[in-house]
Amino acid sequence: MGSSHSALNFGAGPAKLPRSVLVEVQNEFLSYKDSGMSLIEMSHRSKEYDAINNSAQQLIRELLNVPSNYKIIFMQGGGLGCFSAICMNLMGRTGEADYLVTGTWSHIAAKEAAKYGKVNMVFPRPENRSIPDPSTWKLSENASFVYYCDNETVDGVEFHFVPETNGVPLVADMSSNIMTKKVDVSKYGIIFAGAQKNIGPSGTVVVIVREDLLGNAMKTCPTVFDFAHISKNNSVHHTPTTFAVYVMEKVLQWIKTSGGVDKMAENSHQKSTLLYDAINNSNNFYVCPIEESCGVG
Amino acid sequence: MGSSHSALNFGAGPAKLPRSVLVEVQNEFLSYKDSGMSLIEMSHRSKEYDAINNSAQQLIRELLNVPSNYKIIFMQGGGLGCFSAICMNLMGRTGEADYLVTGTWSHIAAKEAAKYGKVNMVFPRPENRSIPDPSTWKLSENASFVYYCDNETVDGVEFHFVPETNGVPLVADMSSNIMTKKVDVSKYGIIFAGAQKNIGPSGTVVVIVREDLLGNAMKTCPTVFDFAHISKNNSVHHTPTTFAVYVMEKVLQWIKTSGGVDKMAENSHQKSTLLYDAINNSNNFYVCPIEESCGVG
Repeated sequence: MGSSHSALNFGAGPAKLPRSVLVEVQNEFLSYKDSGMSLIEMSHRSKEYDAINNSAQQLIRELLNVPSNYKIIFMQGGGLGCFSAICMNLMGRTGEADYLVTGTWSHIAAKEAAKYGKVNMVFPRPENRSIPDPSTWKLSENASFVYYCDNETVDGVEFHFVPETNGVPLVADMSSNIMTKKVDVSKYGIIFAGAQKNIGPSGTVVVIVREDLLGNAMKTCPTVFDFAHISKNNSVHHTPTTFAVYVMEKVLQWIKTSGGVDKMAENSHQKSTLLYDAINNSNNFYVCPIEESCGVG
Repeated sequence: MGSSHSALNFGAGPAKLPRSVLVEVQNEFLSYKDSGMSLIEMSHRSKEYDAINNSAQQLIRELLNVPSNYKIIFMQGGGLGCFSAICMNLMGRTGEADYLVTGTWSHIAAKEAAKYGKVNMVFPRPENRSIPDPSTWKLSENASFVYYCDNETVDGVEFHFVPETNGVPLVADMSSNIMTKKVDVSKYGIIFAGAQKNIGPSGTVVVIVREDLLGNAMKTCPTVFDFAHISKNNSVHHTPTTFAVYVMEKVLQWIKTSGGVDKMAENSHQKSTLLYDAINNSNNFYVCPIEESCGVG
């Protein structure tokens, strides 16, 4: 991904991007497709941006094999904005939701959710970095959705299975592991990801949402967070962060030509094995606080 | 601003940016300040972004002569997101607000506000493109704020005076005329502007807010829209659109070195005079639907 002149960046987000993508963006920065305009000067209603917007959606659909009854939308507000948006779109259905808290981000999401309804904790937050055995989970009968963070960026806890919710829509924050493994999207109500960790710069959030969940937004849901409204308007109902979607489209294209999600999964496994092996072979100089079953992917 | 090779772009937003800013961004795109990283790969908590973030705030303060009892924050969600955020931050104080509807954007803002409380129309929406005489306005006694759009981008109606609200906080959408004229900020409760029309690419909104108005957010206000929370965390409480703030900082610097707001006001007047003169001298081939008092700035 890098060249000998580029620094290594282990930050979770904004994170490192493929060198070839950066070079491409740089080369066409002053005049996008010979238009004489920078992409960042172009209208979000231009044919150029329309093509980018549609291509980015199509690439996500292709790379993650997203079924046709799911919409792919781009919104602003980051993962944290999406924590609120999820609730304002879905929680009104029953007034409550189940949360699986396994680290910092799901904890913050649950705290945000409490603004909008009753939050059921499916299990007490684990004291060690682990996922309690599903046989001990207390799922509610009346939950409008079950929420979890598929990979806790700060804490390192990753799910290697899809939580069973007995038909209740499952909502997953995949900000820090989207495109690093195959996902059976049909098992989810919503998958969302802030772009800046794995697939682009900051400024846009990808939301993959099952069609039948659209149209239930609370009255107080800001229009910019109303998934049905965004979807109906192909994510250009108001000015999106065009630059972020543009770079993301290039990263998705890079993933595709680099071998798709299968290859990314291989890379990711190789990378984390390197790290975990170094820790494990350090004679306890380094210690890994994460339970093995939810560590290395 | 342009070169002979660059196209003219009359779009309102995303809009044309100074050529020198684009060239600078291009030059340092692969390695920001010799870091070996692109700015878009850098953490929003890095010393590099911290400097950009603070400088952008300082430049706005300087260029608009913003008094010390006002905070300057950057948020996501665009102008439309800010329509909701304004209400969720201020409207809870009395449950109602006054709206001056003079065109498309203030109309949309008033519609959004109705989700959060009682909206009083200060005057019926004018049938022609004009601002009703202030002596005819019906301001409410109990409004938590008075809202207006200082320049209606779609309709062309611009205020050349500051509405008198008898002490009720005045909220202004200045997305399409910020930095094109001197403003007495002390007369406002809040001034906000989506960056993409006048001062940068899309992806960030500038909010200038009087300190005493902070801390009144509704319980259901998303954290990403809570002005007090954003301000307390210097606009990096979660990942901002770093690229948009970065380019905006350069545009603000360009405004400063180009002669500041005074010079921008002169340029803007020259530009609109050219346009209005062409219309007026066209023997009615072109017709201007905007009443003269709220037209050419």
